[in-house]
Order: sequence, then C-alpha cells, then structure tokens
Amino acid sequence: MGVVVDGCPAGLALSEEDLQKELDRRRPGQSKVVTQRQEADKAEILSGVFRGKTTGHPISAIVRNTDAQSKKYDEIEHIWRPGHADYTYDQKYGIRDHRGGGRSSAREMIGRVVAGVIAQKILAPHGVKITAYTTQVGSVTAKKRDLSAIEKNIVRTADPDAAEAMIKAIDEARLATDSIGGVVECVASGVPVGLGEPVYGKLDALLSFALMSLNAVKGVEIGDGFSSVTMRGSQNNDRMRAGKNGQVTFETNHAGGILGGISTGQDIICRIAIKPASSIALEQPAVDREGREVPLKVEGRHDPCLCPRAVPVVEAMVAIVLADALLAAKARGQPAL
Amino acid sequence: MGVVVDGCPAGLALSEEDLQKELDRRRPGQSKVVTQRQEADKAEILSGVFRGKTTGHPISAIVRNTDAQSKKYDEIEHIWRPGHADYTYDQKYGIRDHRGGGRSSAREMIGRVVAGVIAQKILAPHGVKITAYTTQVGSVTAKKRDLSAIEKNIVRTADPDAAEAMIKAIDEARLATDSIGGVVECVASGVPVGLGEPVYGKLDALLSFALMSLNAVKGVEIGDGFSSVTMRGSQNNDRMRAGKNGQVTFETNHAGGILGGISTGQDIICRIAIKPASSIALEQPAVDREGREVPLKVEGRHDPCLCPRAVPVVEAMVAIVLADALLAAKARGQPAL
Amino acid sequence: MGVVVDGCPAGLALSEEDLQKELDRRRPGQSKVVTQRQEADKAEILSGVFRGKTTGHPISAIVRNTDAQSKKYDEIEHIWRPGHADYTYDQKYGIRDHRGGGRSSAREMIGRVVAGVIAQKILAPHGVKITAYTTQVGSVTAKKRDLSAIEKNIVRTADPDAAEAMIKAIDEARLATDSIGGVVECVASGVPVGLGEPVYGKLDALLSFALMSLNAVKGVEIGDGFSSVTMRGSQNNDRMRAGKNGQVTFETNHAGGILGGISTGQDIICRIAIKPASSIALEQPAVDREGREVPLKVEGRHDPCLCPRAVPVVEAMVAIVLADALLAAKARGQPAL
Amino acid sequence: MGVVVDGCPAGLALSEEDLQKELDRRRPGQSKVVTQRQEADKAEILSGVFRGKTTGHPISAIVRNTDAQSKKYDEIEHIWRPGHADYTYDQKYGIRDHRGGGRSSAREMIGRVVAGVIAQKILAPHGVKITAYTTQVGSVTAKKRDLSAIEKNIVRTADPDAAEAMIKAIDEARLATDSIGGVVECVASGVPVGLGEPVYGKLDALLSFALMSLNAVKGVEIGDGFSSVTMRGSQNNDRMRAGKNGQVTFETNHAGGILGGISTGQDIICRIAIKPASSIALEQPAVDREGREVPLKVEGRHDPCLCPRAVPVVEAMVAIVLADALLAAKARGQPAL
Repeated sequence: MGVVVDGCPAGLALSEEDLQKELDRRRPGQSKVVTQRQEADKAEILSGVFRGKTTGHPISAIVRNTDAQSKKYDEIEHIWRPGHADYTYDQKYGIRDHRGGGRSSAREMIGRVVAGVIAQKILAPHGVKITAYTTQVGSVTAKKRDLSAIEKNIVRTADPDAAEAMIKAIDEARLATDSIGGVVECVASGVPVGLGEPVYGKLDALLSFALMSLNAVKGVEIGDGFSSVTMRGSQNNDRMRAGKNGQVTFETNHAGGILGGISTGQDIICRIAIKPASSIALEQPAVDREGREVPLKVEGRHDPCLCPRAVPVVEAMVAIVLADALLAAKARGQPAL
Repeated sequence: MGVVVDGCPAGLALSEEDLQKELDRRRPGQSKVVTQRQEADKAEILSGVFRGKTTGHPISAIVRNTDAQSKKYDEIEHIWRPGHADYTYDQKYGIRDHRGGGRSSAREMIGRVVAGVIAQKILAPHGVKITAYTTQVGSVTAKKRDLSAIEKNIVRTADPDAAEAMIKAIDEARLATDSIGGVVECVASGVPVGLGEPVYGKLDALLSFALMSLNAVKGVEIGDGFSSVTMRGSQNNDRMRAGKNGQVTFETNHAGGILGGISTGQDIICRIAIKPASSIALEQPAVDREGREVPLKVEGRHDPCLCPRAVPVVEAMVAIVLADALLAAKARGQPAL
Repeated sequence: MGVVVDGCPAGLALSEEDLQKELDRRRPGQSKVVTQRQEADKAEILSGVFRGKTTGHPISAIVRNTDAQSKKYDEIEHIWRPGHADYTYDQKYGIRDHRGGGRSSAREMIGRVVAGVIAQKILAPHGVKITAYTTQVGSVTAKKRDLSAIEKNIVRTADPDAAEAMIKAIDEARLATDSIGGVVECVASGVPVGLGEPVYGKLDALLSFALMSLNAVKGVEIGDGFSSVTMRGSQNNDRMRAGKNGQVTFETNHAGGILGGISTGQDIICRIAIKPASSIALEQPAVDREGREVPLKVEGRHDPCLCPRAVPVVEAMVAIVLADALLAAKARGQPAL
Repeated sequence: MGVVVDGCPAGLALSEEDLQKELDRRRPGQSKVVTQRQEADKAEILSGVFRGKTTGHPISAIVRNTDAQSKKYDEIEHIWRPGHADYTYDQKYGIRDHRGGGRSSAREMIGRVVAGVIAQKILAPHGVKITAYTTQVGSVTAKKRDLSAIEKNIVRTADPDAAEAMIKAIDEARLATDSIGGVVECVASGVPVGLGEPVYGKLDALLSFALMSLNAVKGVEIGDGFSSVTMRGSQNNDRMRAGKNGQVTFETNHAGGILGGISTGQDIICRIAIKPASSIALEQPAVDREGREVPLKVEGRHDPCLCPRAVPVVEAMVAIVLADALLAAKARGQPAL
C-alpha cells in the first residue's frame, strides 16, 4: 500500500512512529473480534520529511504486505463474491486483479490512516480533537458516551456497559461463520467556527463524501440525522445564548455543529452505518465469470464486524476533511485562523 | 439566480420549456403544503444553446426574482436566526448579505434543478429514469411504492394511502406556525453497470456529497442504509443469478445498486433525512450581532415541510451525479457506453 | 458577457467603478489604432458584493453588448474564416453559434479583466504592482522601459521614442485592410518570495497557461526566454548578494523572478507573442461548410493590431495567477504572508 | 522516484519494457554530451497492471536510485546554488532536503517519461505520432527536419548536417566546466481535429503549462511563435482548401495545428527554450544560509546541455496533454473519436 499526501505545510514534526501508532489501532490480528490475519502494517516514509519535519513537498509512505496468502484468492479469480466489487470491476473494466481483493480491499484504508495522522498534525495547534467509537453492533446499542472507555474495550465503544454485549454479538456472528453490522460515531471538538464553504464545499457534504467512500458504509448522519425528521422546527433549532468575543454558546446541538455547511464552533458530530462484512466463510450461492451458479465459501480470515477497526479510519477521514477546510479557510484570509 | 453548466455535450435538444417544467415542480406557491410566496421562477437561457441545441459550450441560465419582499429581511440583518447560516456566515466572513437569505436561501436550489434537466438529457438516451418521492413526514411513514401516485398528491408520496396523513401532519405544523421534517427517497432505474470510480469517485460517495449539500439535509442512506446494521452478512449480501450477456440478475437489492462504489445495473436507491425548516413564525429566543438575547418570529411565507419541493431537487442531484459518472466512464473508454 | 469569480476573501472594497476603470482601458473605440466598434462595456455587479465590500461568496458581474451588429455575422455562419476557430468549432461540436464570434470572440477577455481587478485587490496589500506594455509591433521594437510613458501613447509602449513608429506600422496595416502582430511584456514588482508550488503549480507554468489561453497568443517567455539559449550557465545564473532578513539581492534577473517554479522576490517578467489578428477586410480565399472554396472579406470593425487592448488583459492574467498563488501559499501557512 | 497515473483506460498492453525503452532515452550516462552519472533507471510497476494489461486502476511505478552520491550534496546543504531552487525552497518552506537536489532535481522528469509512455498507449490507436528533436544548441541552429536522423546523433537533432556543430558547442561548454542552452521542437502528427476546450482547457494553453513545468524551460512557442509577430494577417492566416468528409486541408501551418484552442487536424508544432543548466563546476560567487558570500563550484556530474535528454521528456509531456484532451473529448461524446 502506498500513499501520497500533497498540500501539507512545511515544518510539522512527523515520524514513522506517529504513523505506526494509528496503524496499530487499525491493523489485523489485534483482538479476537477482528480478522486474525497477522500484518505488522509497518509504515515507511519515502519522501516529504527531512530530519523529522515535513518539507512542504508531497509526503509519500509505504506499508508492505507480509502475511498475504495469495493462494487463498485463487478461487475468487473466476467467482464473483456476493456483496463485493468483483462483479462491478469485471463489468466496468473487463479485467480484474483478484489477488488480495485489489483496490476494494480493506487494506486500502491504510492510506487514509496515514493521511489522517498528517491531518491531525495540522489540526492539533488549533485544539481540534477527534474521537470515534462504536455505538451499535447488530441490535446492541450504546446508551452512554464515556470517551475514556473507548480504548479499554476491544469493540471500541464509549459505553463500557454495552461492550460485553457487543462483543457477544460479534462472537455469535463469528461462530456462525457469518458477519454483523454496526454504527460508528465521531465527535470533533475544538473545531473553529467558520470552516466549510457556503455552496461547493459545504462541510457536511465533504464529511459525507469522505465517510461514504469507506468500504461497507451505507449511511451517514450529521448531528441528529434521521431522528431530526420527527421533530418540529421549534425543537430542532439549537437555541443560541450570547457568548463572548462576539460569539455565542448553543444550548443544544441537534445540528451536529454545522449550519449552512459551515462549522458553528460546537462539537461536530457524525455517524455512519456499516453493513455486515460481505466476506463470510458460510456457504452462499454465487455466480462465476462463465455464468455458472456455484456455491461459495469465502475462505480466509475475515472481520466478523468491521466497527472496531473502522474507528481509527473514521477519525482519519474526519481529520482530513477538517484539515482541508482549515487550510482553505486560511487561504481566504479568515481572520480568526 | 444564475447557473452555469459546463461539460455538456453538443447537439442535445434543450429549451426553456424543458427547464420550466422542472422549475414548476419546485416553485413556491404550488400547493397549500408549501410556502405561499408567489414566484413564477421563469427561466431564461443566456448562452450555450443555439437553435434549440446545446453547442458544447457552457450553458448559462438565469431565473429572476419577482416576489422578493426585501423589507421582510430587514429584521434579520442584525439577528441570527436559530438553525440558519446567519451566525456562521457572520463569523466566517465578518459581513453578510441578509437580503433574501443570501446564498443559503432555498432559491439556490434553482440552479440545481436547471443543471438536473441538462443531466437528464445526457442520461435519457441510455434509458435512465430517476424518480424521487416523500416516504416520511414527521412520524407518518409510507408503506407502499407506487410511482404513478407521486404527482397526484401534493406531498409527492408514492404511497397514496399515506398522503392524507402526511398532509395532515404538515397542516398541524403549519397551523402551529412551526415546521416538520421528513424523508425523501430516490430510485434511478436503467443505470448502466460500471458507473463510478473505485477510490476517488465512488458513486455512493458522490451521491452523498451531492445530497448532503442540499439545504436542511442531515442524513443520507444508500440501499438499506442504517437498517443494514442489524443484518448478518449472509442476509445482506444480494444473491446473484446468472443473467444474459455475461451479466447477472440480483434477487434482492440491499446494496441499493452500488458495490465497491460502482453501479451494478440494479436500481440505485438513496434516501435523505430533511430536518424541519428552520424558518418558523413561532416566537423563539435568538441573539443579535450586538450579543443581545432577543425574541424572534421569522416573518415571511415559509415551507412548513421541505419535502414536497425537495423531490424535484433530489432527482436533479441524482441526475447530475449519474450524468457526470457516465461522461467520466465514456472518457475511460468503457465499451458498453 | 458574464463572469463569476469564486474564492475571493471577504471584506475587500470593490465597486463597479473599479471594474470600469480597467474595462475602459480594454474597450473598443478608444483610439485610432484599435477597432472602431463602439461599446461602452458597462459593468454591473450582480452578487458577491454588499455595501461596497466583497462578502466571501462568488462575485458575478455582467457586461452587456450595445453595439452588436449581428447582421455582420450572417456571412460567416456558413464560411470558415481563416485563422479563426470557426472550422475547429464546427468539427468539434457539429454546431456553431456564429453570432458575434461566439466564445472565441475577443469580448471573452472582458471576464478576465473583471477577475483581474479582483485579483489586484487581493495583491495590493502586499505591495504587488503589475504593469504591461507593448514592446514590439511588426518589426518595430522598443529599446527603453519607461513605465510612466505607457498610458501617454495609444499603442501603450514603455518606449516613448518607439511609439510613433509603432503607430505608423499599425496604420500601414490598417490602410492595407490587413493586420499586424506584436509583443507585450509584463513586469510584476513587489511579489513576495515563495509563491508557486514545486511541481504541480509552478508559477512559470501557471503564467504560461494563463497567457497562452488569451486569443492570438502564440508564444510565452519568462525572463530572458528564448535569448537565454545562447548563453553559458555562468552568464545566465543570476548572482546573489547577501541581503537582509535572511534574504538576498540579485545582481541580474535573467530568470525573470522565478527559480524552480517559485518566485524569488525579484520582478517577475514575462512576454507574449501576439499574432496578427485573423479578422481582416482584405479579400482572402476561404472554404464554406458545403466544402466550396469562396473568397472572403471579413466585414466589421477589426483591430489592426491586438497589442494596445491586450495590455490590460495581460496585467489581469498575471494578477489572477499571482493572487491565486498567494492564497495557496497562505493555505500552506507560509510564515511571511 | 515514484509516479502514479490515474485515469488510464483498462485493457491497454503495458510492460516494464515499454517504460524502460523511453527511460533509456532519458537516462544519464548514455553519451558524452550528457551527465556521466551512471543510473540504470530501471522501472518497476507496482500496481494497475495485471497480466500485461492495464486494469483501469491507478498505475504506480517506481525507479530506484543506484548511483546517488549523497556526499556530493553536503556542500549545498548550506549554500544556495545560483540559478537553482535552493534559495526559493528555503524561503518558502524554511526547510530543504538538499540531498540529490530534492524535488527540483532533473530526476523528477522520470515520472513524466513513465506517464508519457502510458499516454502514448492511449493515443496510438488513433494514429498519433509524437517526435521531438533539438533545433538549436547555443547559436548553432538546425536548418533541416529529417525525423529519421534524430536517434542517429547524440544531440538528437533532426538536421544531420548541424549535429556535429551542436556537439562541438556542447563540448566547448563542457571543457570550460560551463553549460549551454538550446531549443527543442516537437511535432505531433495524426492528431484528430477537435481536441481542446474553447476557454478553460485550450490545447495550446495546456501544452504551455506542461512544457513550462519542465526544469530549465524559459519559453514556449506554438507554430510560428514569436516570428508570427512580424507577419501580416494575410500572410499568417493558414489558407484552407476543400478536403474530404467535410474537413479541409491547409496550405500552410503557421498556427501550429491549433485554432481557438482546438486542434485543426494538422501537425501540432511546439518549441521550448531551455536555459543553460544552472549546475556548473566553474567557480561562481554564491551566498550561504548564514548570509555569507562564498565561492562555489557545484561538484558532481552535470549535463553540459539539457537538450539531448530533454527530447524524450518533451515527447512525454505532449503525449500526456493530447491523451488527456482525447479522453475529455470522448467524455463529451464527440462523434469522430
């Protein structure tokens, strides 16, 4: 996996250790609720960093595969796995590199995590802090939000009371050689007011684009999302109170920190629906490239639930969008930045 | 309102009547469930069309305001309306053109409708048909999908049995000088397999970007969206059956017609959550630019529910995304296009 | 003619008078060496400016035709004028709006002049000053550079001694119902060091793109341009002397103020070759759309030499490129900006 | 050196040998008139090609350094080489990776050559053929254009009679531990009529952008370029004759195959001025980062003239621009493509 990040300011401290810390949160084999493939996911910075600082030039990094078992992929050369991009790739291109799942592989997330680390470096001096966590696995939902709990449970939920039931739900799916879906929420605090553009680069639209581009994501919400539908305007409008420095404080945050496509200074809150992973060892009917209907067990070591490893990726995507919006706002000369 | 559309192929028939037909579906004053402002929304094509055909050059069109009551906006020059972009604009720019709601006005949707008509002209020869409809108003949800019913009820739902209850829900909000949210769904049939790019221009990500950029949208779903979360992979994977010409048929469509960011050839299904309109005549607490807390009744003629007039805009956005993806796929030389 | 400029910071003073001043320098009929068509080229700002200041939103302006004589264009509906885009448009699109010359008309320069005024507003606080002037008409070349002389002669040369001979060369071409080419040079002083990106947005490449996109331009030079070819490296390398604040001064400026695609802080110098205008009343052989060879006199009121009116357009393009590079550099957080 | 090329259609045959053939034309050490550094410039394709065919996904390739002598670069860590980007990089970023010349190194051309090979694969089925050659070294100019002669002389001129004098001019500069400039011309034949867009993507503007982004280029001409300045319109307009299939033939090609930013179907002709290489072993005064004036001999193995190795790079850039314009034209549905 290679990644190139252009547009990063010069002079930021950046090391391979910085990258590794986040890659380790996403890597396979870290707990029993994720794929048991063993990948070290060691990051190597090839360019754009000199003596520990970014140079202002494109940053490129590479993460090599060590536990690829290409043999495992031989079967899917000719079979279209249900729920996968195999069929659409073959139809679109007439050719498909089936080894390792190719471009639709979850390993593609690695580049996003690397870019997210760099984005965090741009945001950190502004006090922005981004935290994602699992709020639902199957029908088990979190009731609390204790950010300090997240890294203490393997499912990465912010509700310590729900963790066990979530793990159990994943275990059941795993034992059935099946998979299960979930929801990941992300909160970004300390975001300056004024990020996002009023028409072509609305912050909520950019977040949706970034999050919906992640594998297996089928829904995105900002703030109250679909539950705002049943509200009246008088309930849903977030009441402002006079604040200081010409700014305001808000009594509620139904909007999720964005009004008119621009950040309000409140926490930015977003949420994604992650479908159950398509790769399952359970036998299912499939079709091959010769048009024959064949039974298929997708061999390999799959994630029974994508949420635990999606958490750092969601943080990365939110960081990338915010850093980009911050740099764009600086270009426009916004005084407060 | 002005709009410029670049990239349209030459030689397509395009008239002001084509634009008008869709603008009429979005215009104010068309029924009792929408704003009672009277705007003809007459479209005038300024360039890019010659003797009824597109020339391949940018198409520009203009729609003039006729019923603007700028007086009505005087009050909001100094007051930040809750749930609106007034505050974020003032913070971002230090200056705000308050007349008519400015760039955050729902009138900005006009440009999108115009672009949508042009996009439909590009898609039509390929047999693509795009239809949106209201599936929820407040807590009233549609149970059926009869596309022929949509234009026969003023709330534009595809469930004729739910129409009355939806209208009633809007009426109640309107009489309370309040507003109410809803859900609009869109189905695109006849979409060729192979639209969308595997990483940077995933079709679902592009749709999310387009739809989340509409005013008041707080959530986007593709296919089963958030309800796929509680499913097992074995249930959620859409079973393929051998079809003809090397293609397949699908037994279900949980994925909403997109796998790996690329269209499968099935119906593309997406859905948006629309918050209750922020502009309400009901008195609510607000803050002004001098930091004073003041009561506010947003005068004017507002939409008690945004769904009925959002329907043609959603169709336009989906058409724009699909037409763009179609042209991109042609550039890549995809054989079937 | 309409123009939309996005990305302008909020709060800059901008008036229609600002636009008019520059449009007047480009407008037809201003002297005997330019086209005698009478166009007031009155600019009207439609959006993006509120109470005399930019709002941070897209600025749109419009300039209406008043002296269009569409009749004059009837003949060229079916004939491809030599040296014009008529033939390429017809071949590319299969349809062509012949009235007024369409998109390839010199009137298209109006939008660029408007954008240039806005760019100058962004640059002015940094002390950037951009001045263009004619250095050659036919074989008459300027020997001096006295910037104060430029607006005192109708050919806009910085060499007052050459002005008369240049005007005579144009007059001769005009009397022969023919046209003649020329060279325009532009110098930008006060440009901060560090504008431009090292690979994808080199400042010299951006300038070339902008200048070569002007009608009738066939060559672009930066600094010594083609005459650097005969130099040795030891002559051509601009010697640096230690300056103040960690910067340097240069003894020469063969490079034209750009090294490695990035501004050095010296004057930026560029130069364009403008071909003789294609539209001439002198009879010339042409071909019509039916493939017949026909004699053609291009009726109308043409520019015998494009240089005098190109001068403000060249300034505009250089301003646009520099303003863009300045905003991009701000986004990267360059400390000195 | 790494390169990533996105947007290439699927199914094109592409091998490392294809890349190598062009890289060999650019690599150091190939003759006595270029740098004597020994680099094999071996290309390795990392992704985007499967079983010898492009997959439609981004193609990435890497070329490793083997003869880097980083020691040689120690001196320039603190000294700004005249005519180089050292000073502008330090001023822009406050940090500079001096090893190997960094991003401003001529090795950066490798990525362009790789992309050019891929572009040629896209163009070849349309019959496009692109050939560049040296037309001037110092004051020695070519008088003939015999394309078959180019690869038979080490200076890559199309005038076999001028080759010896050009080589002598380079030798003289080399023996003086100095460098000398030159001109490279490029002709693209078989280009379909209709490539390029009328305003924002004019073909001549795109070519200028691409060519001016090459190291050491200080001027670009299309067709007759600066020499068109002394012509009358009646001489410079290329006379059309009725051709077949509704197209025309041209009697001359002063325009260089582009009218109104769009290809005419004639040969596209462009030309660049290349300054004498900045890196010379001859002692010259310089300034270091502490603001001291110091004498400098740039040690290393430099090109006494950049033209011979620039020839394949120019071809690559022209190919990239034309392939891009071709794909864009296909997207617009131009019938002839």
